[in-house]
Amino acid sequence: MNATPHNSRYHSLVAIGQVTSLLLAVISGALMVTTAVSLGMDDSPKVVRGFLLTFLVTASLATLFYYVCRQRLGRRTLETSARDGFVSVGLGWLVVSVIAAIAFRLTIGIPWADAIFETSSGLTTTGATILGDSALFEAPKGCLDAAKPAFGYGILFWRAMLNWLGGVGIVFFVLLLLPMLKLGQSKMLYNAEVPGLKTTADQTTPHLATSVWCVLGVYGGLTLAAILLYHIFGMTWFDAVCHAFSTISTGGFSPRADGLAHYNHLPALQWIVVLFMFLSACNFSLHIQRFTSLKVVYWKDEEFRFFFIVVLVAIGFVATSLGLSGVSRKMLFLNGEEGITFVSVEEYLRVAAFQVVTVLSTTGFCNGNWESWGISSVLLLIAILMVPCGCGGSTAGGMKWSRIVVLFKQLSLEIRRCISPRMVQDIRLNNERLDSGVVGKTLAFVALYAIITLAVALLLSVFEPMAKDVSTAFGAALTSLSNVGPGFGAVNPAGNFAEFNCISKLLLALTMIIGRLELFTIIVLFLPSTWKK
Amino acid sequence: MNATPHNSRYHSLVAIGQVTSLLLAVISGALMVTTAVSLGMDDSPKVVRGFLLTFLVTASLATLFYYVCRQRLGRRTLETSARDGFVSVGLGWLVVSVIAAIAFRLTIGIPWADAIFETSSGLTTTGATILGDSALFEAPKGCLDAAKPAFGYGILFWRAMLNWLGGVGIVFFVLLLLPMLKLGQSKMLYNAEVPGLKTTADQTTPHLATSVWCVLGVYGGLTLAAILLYHIFGMTWFDAVCHAFSTISTGGFSPRADGLAHYNHLPALQWIVVLFMFLSACNFSLHIQRFTSLKVVYWKDEEFRFFFIVVLVAIGFVATSLGLSGVSRKMLFLNGEEGITFVSVEEYLRVAAFQVVTVLSTTGFCNGNWESWGISSVLLLIAILMVPCGCGGSTAGGMKWSRIVVLFKQLSLEIRRCISPRMVQDIRLNNERLDSGVVGKTLAFVALYAIITLAVALLLSVFEPMAKDVSTAFGAALTSLSNVGPGFGAVNPAGNFAEFNCISKLLLALTMIIGRLELFTIIVLFLPSTWKK
Repeated sequence: MNATPHNSRYHSLVAIGQVTSLLLAVISGALMVTTAVSLGMDDSPKVVRGFLLTFLVTASLATLFYYVCRQRLGRRTLETSARDGFVSVGLGWLVVSVIAAIAFRLTIGIPWADAIFETSSGLTTTGATILGDSALFEAPKGCLDAAKPAFGYGILFWRAMLNWLGGVGIVFFVLLLLPMLKLGQSKMLYNAEVPGLKTTADQTTPHLATSVWCVLGVYGGLTLAAILLYHIFGMTWFDAVCHAFSTISTGGFSPRADGLAHYNHLPALQWIVVLFMFLSACNFSLHIQRFTSLKVVYWKDEEFRFFFIVVLVAIGFVATSLGLSGVSRKMLFLNGEEGITFVSVEEYLRVAAFQVVTVLSTTGFCNGNWESWGISSVLLLIAILMVPCGCGGSTAGGMKWSRIVVLFKQLSLEIRRCISPRMVQDIRLNNERLDSGVVGKTLAFVALYAIITLAVALLLSVFEPMAKDVSTAFGAALTSLSNVGPGFGAVNPAGNFAEFNCISKLLLALTMIIGRLELFTIIVLFLPSTWKK
Repeated sequence: MNATPHNSRYHSLVAIGQVTSLLLAVISGALMVTTAVSLGMDDSPKVVRGFLLTFLVTASLATLFYYVCRQRLGRRTLETSARDGFVSVGLGWLVVSVIAAIAFRLTIGIPWADAIFETSSGLTTTGATILGDSALFEAPKGCLDAAKPAFGYGILFWRAMLNWLGGVGIVFFVLLLLPMLKLGQSKMLYNAEVPGLKTTADQTTPHLATSVWCVLGVYGGLTLAAILLYHIFGMTWFDAVCHAFSTISTGGFSPRADGLAHYNHLPALQWIVVLFMFLSACNFSLHIQRFTSLKVVYWKDEEFRFFFIVVLVAIGFVATSLGLSGVSRKMLFLNGEEGITFVSVEEYLRVAAFQVVTVLSTTGFCNGNWESWGISSVLLLIAILMVPCGCGGSTAGGMKWSRIVVLFKQLSLEIRRCISPRMVQDIRLNNERLDSGVVGKTLAFVALYAIITLAVALLLSVFEPMAKDVSTAFGAALTSLSNVGPGFGAVNPAGNFAEFNCISKLLLALTMIIGRLELFTIIVLFLPSTWKK
């Protein structure tokens, strides 16, 4: 029954230490860059000092963990069991979220729960924020350097950086780590793995380095392209970098208090953001194939086709609803100006496309506020889209469309079996037969998704005074688990999580991490048998 | 691939005709009784004439169908294929719902959509009503015979009768018909069948008569017991009969405009109603075993244990929430008197128990209005409970707890597989290994349940002016599919469906029938290949 080696408890600790050390090293590297940015942008000494201190803490912890683990392990390589793999990634992510939260403590001195919420939201690429006071994003009154935010630029850059790191982390986790954990095991698919996922990256160690560079190349290339285009179409360099970081990671943190609504007067820029959000919600292995083989592989992928059609239909539905309801400019746009009543077709279409793609890609950028539109069918559609979200192997969260495709195929199979009970047929994805266990895993995943969403919503509605209506509680739970960002009610696109109490904030931070690591990676940590020898 | 015989189209027509003829014969029998009641209670001649006419129409149609089918079939017995079984039950139920609606047309002359909605709601044991004008239930002003409702008693009795017939129909369908359709096929479970269902009734023809009598005996016995106890504890004979009919069938139609809230001053009576609602939500084969073998079999059944614990936990949660929120008497009870502020523990507990059991058993009787309590966690819990509802083989609707048990077992299996990937284990229910196809069927059922609920909610929110908020649209869709009755928003326990437009009413009537026949029975009717040779 148990596949772990004999000295498993010892092995597990070393694996956890190694993973945590690696993650902390990455974080400390990012902190070094942030410190430099903060210093270069002439932030207040307290902020610069805060980042520097956090860098020193994370760097020393990373070094400490590394040497302790190396000493214990000697020169033997570690054969990672399935259990160790799960435990070390899950626990490592949790530990890093807490340690990286020091940065917010030492710079702007927000409470621990807030710092952990903001860090988790960043690293899970959710983009929900507790920095609710929009004044902090703007230049303080009477300040000579009027362009400078009260925060300092360092904080804004750090939030974008957290998004970016989380994004690349999750692509590695899904495209490289999960398939590696599978090695040597039977054909069993992992519960956390997305069914039918194409991982072009070869999984044997000699080619691992190539795979890593492929992922980094595509991820970095997309980010660079976004930075350039964002700047060309009207953003400052700083805004372009920050927004590119949080677009490609589908994170959604913005250096502007009003987010992308700040650029409502630049239609071309917003369409480009839509394009990059869409690309980030596609399977990155498709991008890698596109760039390494120079073949157009997208339309051959069943999940991509399904996703693409859903995007088009949803945009059409929302744009038509907005147009027919004649939503005014003031209501349509977040921070829309009053007075002007005429709204062009392009504007309806742009807001619809932007908001649909922001939800499906789980970015959470907003140029409009669906709550203020007052169209129940659109609200319901957005809530529905918040469940599957993006494609497997992307930086987007949610249940992933490949699971929905499996679900539809199983459903169609069972309906046909009603009239031809003896029919035997496999489920195929991209013409490949899926393992027979995939149906059970999909059922378990869907069930767990529903259970966690409803349990978190129920807890919020009991303990959170801000979530005294069902839509706020449900919206906060679902948007956190799917790593979207904005929800409904009090946490609509114009709202934030600042007023939530600290227990709710920690609960939601945990929910984000559970969702980000495909549920099972964190859930097994709560299982007693995981910790038994 | 196709298991149907050669002359299948012909066979199908005969099967559909036979089933419809049988169902119409039952309906015409019930109409005869109703005509007698209407005449005996001295209803207006128009109402009596209406029932008599409807009886003549249904009786002649039943006879016609019977003779046509017998002539075509000759003396050969019909070997029913899976497809014919599904098609004839699904189509038969639809046809009967429309034909039986004539009764409402000819007596009180409501529009066709209203008549079909009310009939479908009755036969599916949903209990949602479009008879919104509460004045119709009371005696008209200035009327000498003050106790007599404006409707006449016949209509009230007919509604209860529809519930009662629907209830016994569904027990036959699940306990006898589905297992019969399975005969001769491989071990494949039917999609519409509840997993792990104990059907004590032997499925071979010689014992079929015994099984029918067992079901009728227990169903009738429970109804008789309810009538007697309801009368002893304070109802008039007429009310006792009508309420017993709609309790045991978990239908929920009431001859009172304020339903069971009419008896808020009779605690003992309301507790007895809770008991009977609970019993009706249990698997009837357990009742049959209890009465035929005189052994207490309930606690041995895994689904019953699960259901029982859920009932207790949910009552505890709701009662505690009500108590802690200090809901006033006026808010707690439907039609609660103003002024009196003190509410006893028994009252909180009674309302909690009544409302939890009414939702889980899908009866839809109400002594309180959850919407007026203003506790979001309770609203969320009620919405969650509206999905699984009762046990398989009961008269209750919903997804059934045995499917939830399978889902939990699969989930627990997959979580344990994360750390021991080579583990092989079956899913067992009541110590019996379930067929390997059951996981796929559960996934398909859950998916279809979600898709239908969301699709109907989306359609309502687009086309129904009354459902301009998400909770009304979602509540109406879910309560119809689960055959509960009351929902949220405009259709809360104090509301009704009278103001909905006729397209919504027909859509919801269809939703109720889809839910009542375990989804697949109706869905296959929409499949083109069902109608191909």
